[in-house]
Amino acid sequence: MDALGIALIGCGTVGTGVAKILLERGERMLSRAGRPLELRRIVVRDPVRPRDPAIPTTLITTDFSTVLSDPNVHVVVELVGGTQKARQFVLESLHAGKHVVTANKALLAEHGTEVFEAARQNERTVAFEASVAGGVPIIAAIGQSLAANQVTSIQGILNGTSNFILTAMADKGQSYADALAEAQRLGYAEADPTLDVDGSDAAHKLGVLARLGFGIDVPMASIERIGIDRIDATDLKFAQELGYVIKLLAEAWLNQGQVAMHVAPVLLRRNSMLAQVRGAYNAIQVMGDVVGETLYMGPGAGMMPTASSVVADLIDLAVGRAQRTFQQLRLWEASAQGFSLRSNDTVTSRFYLRLQVDDRPGMLAEVARVLASHQISIASVIQHEPRDTTGAQSVPLVIMTHAAPTGGFRRALDTINQLPGVHAPCVWYSVAD
Amino acid sequence: MDALGIALIGCGTVGTGVAKILLERGERMLSRAGRPLELRRIVVRDPVRPRDPAIPTTLITTDFSTVLSDPNVHVVVELVGGTQKARQFVLESLHAGKHVVTANKALLAEHGTEVFEAARQNERTVAFEASVAGGVPIIAAIGQSLAANQVTSIQGILNGTSNFILTAMADKGQSYADALAEAQRLGYAEADPTLDVDGSDAAHKLGVLARLGFGIDVPMASIERIGIDRIDATDLKFAQELGYVIKLLAEAWLNQGQVAMHVAPVLLRRNSMLAQVRGAYNAIQVMGDVVGETLYMGPGAGMMPTASSVVADLIDLAVGRAQRTFQQLRLWEASAQGFSLRSNDTVTSRFYLRLQVDDRPGMLAEVARVLASHQISIASVIQHEPRDTTGAQSVPLVIMTHAAPTGGFRRALDTINQLPGVHAPCVWYSVAD
Ligand SMILES: NC(=O)c1ccc[n+]([C@@H]2O[C@H](COP(=O)([O-])OP(=O)(O)OC[C@H]3O[C@@H](n4cnc5c(N)ncnc54)[C@H](OP(=O)(O)O)[C@@H]3O)[C@@H](O)[C@H]2O)c1
Ligand SMILES: NC(=O)c1ccc[n+]([C@@H]2O[C@H](COP(=O)([O-])OP(=O)(O)OC[C@H]3O[C@@H](n4cnc5c(N)ncnc54)[C@H](OP(=O)(O)O)[C@@H]3O)[C@@H](O)[C@H]2O)c1
Repeated sequence: MDALGIALIGCGTVGTGVAKILLERGERMLSRAGRPLELRRIVVRDPVRPRDPAIPTTLITTDFSTVLSDPNVHVVVELVGGTQKARQFVLESLHAGKHVVTANKALLAEHGTEVFEAARQNERTVAFEASVAGGVPIIAAIGQSLAANQVTSIQGILNGTSNFILTAMADKGQSYADALAEAQRLGYAEADPTLDVDGSDAAHKLGVLARLGFGIDVPMASIERIGIDRIDATDLKFAQELGYVIKLLAEAWLNQGQVAMHVAPVLLRRNSMLAQVRGAYNAIQVMGDVVGETLYMGPGAGMMPTASSVVADLIDLAVGRAQRTFQQLRLWEASAQGFSLRSNDTVTSRFYLRLQVDDRPGMLAEVARVLASHQISIASVIQHEPRDTTGAQSVPLVIMTHAAPTGGFRRALDTINQLPGVHAPCVWYSVAD
Repeated sequence: MDALGIALIGCGTVGTGVAKILLERGERMLSRAGRPLELRRIVVRDPVRPRDPAIPTTLITTDFSTVLSDPNVHVVVELVGGTQKARQFVLESLHAGKHVVTANKALLAEHGTEVFEAARQNERTVAFEASVAGGVPIIAAIGQSLAANQVTSIQGILNGTSNFILTAMADKGQSYADALAEAQRLGYAEADPTLDVDGSDAAHKLGVLARLGFGIDVPMASIERIGIDRIDATDLKFAQELGYVIKLLAEAWLNQGQVAMHVAPVLLRRNSMLAQVRGAYNAIQVMGDVVGETLYMGPGAGMMPTASSVVADLIDLAVGRAQRTFQQLRLWEASAQGFSLRSNDTVTSRFYLRLQVDDRPGMLAEVARVLASHQISIASVIQHEPRDTTGAQSVPLVIMTHAAPTGGFRRALDTINQLPGVHAPCVWYSVAD
């Protein structure tokens, strides 16, 4: 059978990995795909930038239009990143009759509907396994393997940088700043880690998964997100004392036709599977109404793990599977019967609440009274002696509540933050059970 | 598009689940597959056996030949079990031009080559997601999502019954007999649990995975297996004391063109992911040479989880993906470049060794000397006081070794079992690190 002709746009971390597999593993690709996967062009920004010696300079170009006009390029692999140029490359490729493979969650989260629509107009396919959780085949799991199910919840550790930092803070007692510096030194965090640690990257990935699992197009602005950038080591310690671990989770739940979503640090029971996911690994727990609970774990980023998923998409295209999957997604989305977004205020959860309060009698009673007036009952309390004996006047007070609607909890919190003797603002996280 | 016509052979636990999804979730199936999945016949052994009220008696028959002759049946779903009748049903279906979906690991492990060959001769497809790990999509993961990789190792908790029993023994300190009785009461173990607890079921599943991951046809007799039926609660306790958990693992490793495989209770570090897999869950850790380590977890058996995987295969067939996947597997197998089986004696591992020895000086020294003479060094030792003070003359001695080839360790063991003062036979397990 004829070769599948491939052009890479972008030859940075992931692009280099993909090029190496295609160039160095030709025989394997032939056996997996039944036809050669032929890398025909590599488009970059800077033609003289030094590259991995495995990348033939003869393939390198800065002229994207040569890709569009080459009839022997069947698939464009977008590994540029960002949403501006990438959107343009992808739309033009589809209009030129090329299939697209992309690892770009930001693009799909923000322009997914437009991109998918362009693909359909042109009867072409978009494959995007690498856009969520790097080497973990979560797109195939939800889009194919769980097809008998309606997904009812998704809980993911989707940002390796954040998980690396939280793991280092919990294990070594490092401060946030020290753990971040270490992550940067080891290459797990970018020089500018903002999108990773503020929850945006995880929110993008959650948006991609929600489209697949629930058939909804979620405006990024409507995904509430709290990052790990204001996490205090104190809370990791208290969580530990209570038998919990704090992880940055991206969560979505389907309930009576409505989907609630958020990205936030969440307390997980120490012996739960997600609590065990350490370092830069990603993991996603997916609940289906037929199968129950399933979990997928692996390296969430990095050159070769991400390339593994990009190449899986290329093989799927070469075999002809990806085309059928993408075509089915349309019906799948249409069948979502109008699932709508739900306010997080209606989501019920247990809560962890840490207050710094004046060291005087009656503080706990006052806080408990406010919670009770919002129908929130207390499950457990930790109150230690002041840590320094140098005359500290305030003490930490940690409360775990029973389950309550988030809206009520937030209103209670507003009142508690106003209480005399409470050093506002209080710190709180939801608790996954 | 035309309906995909389906016949179920067998309507027991799994068959009933599949029938319910097809009959009660018609609209969902249509949206997932783009065409109706139509259940046309259900073949059983006993026509008058009471069945779930959801199963229409009009579909029930005992005459398999009506399936073969019905041109509107495109797929036969074999959910009979066993290797005799099932083999016949499957081969006849393929020869009659039907695709086959099966959950039958015993059939595939023992007659996989014959079944696959018959499918190819007839240009038909065999899909078997449900045959390993119930609701966990491990077949799709290895066969499609990791296609860029050469799988280099597989480590699986593949028997839910065994894992349930080991979890109960470890958590509640139950004896093997009590934990088995509880598993039977709760429906996690069959009345005759032999194939589950002696490692045969896990070996069948490992055989199916090895065919997929390494392209080899493994005679069942060549998979060494040790079940959990002789596990002593004492060893779970010692393992715990050393920071380990004992799990029944099915393992296969590729090394220099050779594949070693076994099923055995193995010590896993307490904080490893597989160690956290509790109760009847299954999980598989797959290492690929490109992606690194990935893990898949979910319910390993049961009516609906297993049906979820069977129906995923039916949707794949309806969409046309399964046909392409199965076709590719042929090349994949052929590309295995003659991976051969490797003797476990050459596999290097650490070992846990528990001896019951006379309570006299010098016993440890003698055992250590034998180990040393086989180049096996000791990493740690536990030796407690005798548990009863009623004049017990022997004490347990627990040794963790450093890594050594299994063959050498076994020879050392033969000698140790002969030592005066050692109450043979010693108990030993390998240690996964
Ligand atoms: N890195 C990971 O581990 C990972 C994991 C999962 C998903 N992803 C996603 O994969 C994508 C690529 O990530 P990456 O880490 O590989 O990025 P990167 O290392 O920054 O590489 C970006 C590449 O795009 C090229 N490029 C940028 N602007 C261009 C333009 N206007 N025209 C042509 N080429 C242009 C760059 O060219 P020069 O080489 O000339 O500068 C570079 O080769 C992103 O969407 C990212 O979110 C990455
Ligand atoms: N149970 C699980 O959780 C699970 C999980 C994964 C895989 N599997 C696999 O799935 C398969 C089915 O398991 P199961 O638990 O559903 O078995 P099961 O409950 O024992 O049901 C077997 C069915 O096969 C029918 N049958 C037996 N012999 C037959 C014959 N000669 N002709 C026609 N029908 C015949 C029986 O008919 P009657 O109803 O008339 O007796 C019954 O409906 C097995 O291969 C098993 O290994 C099971």
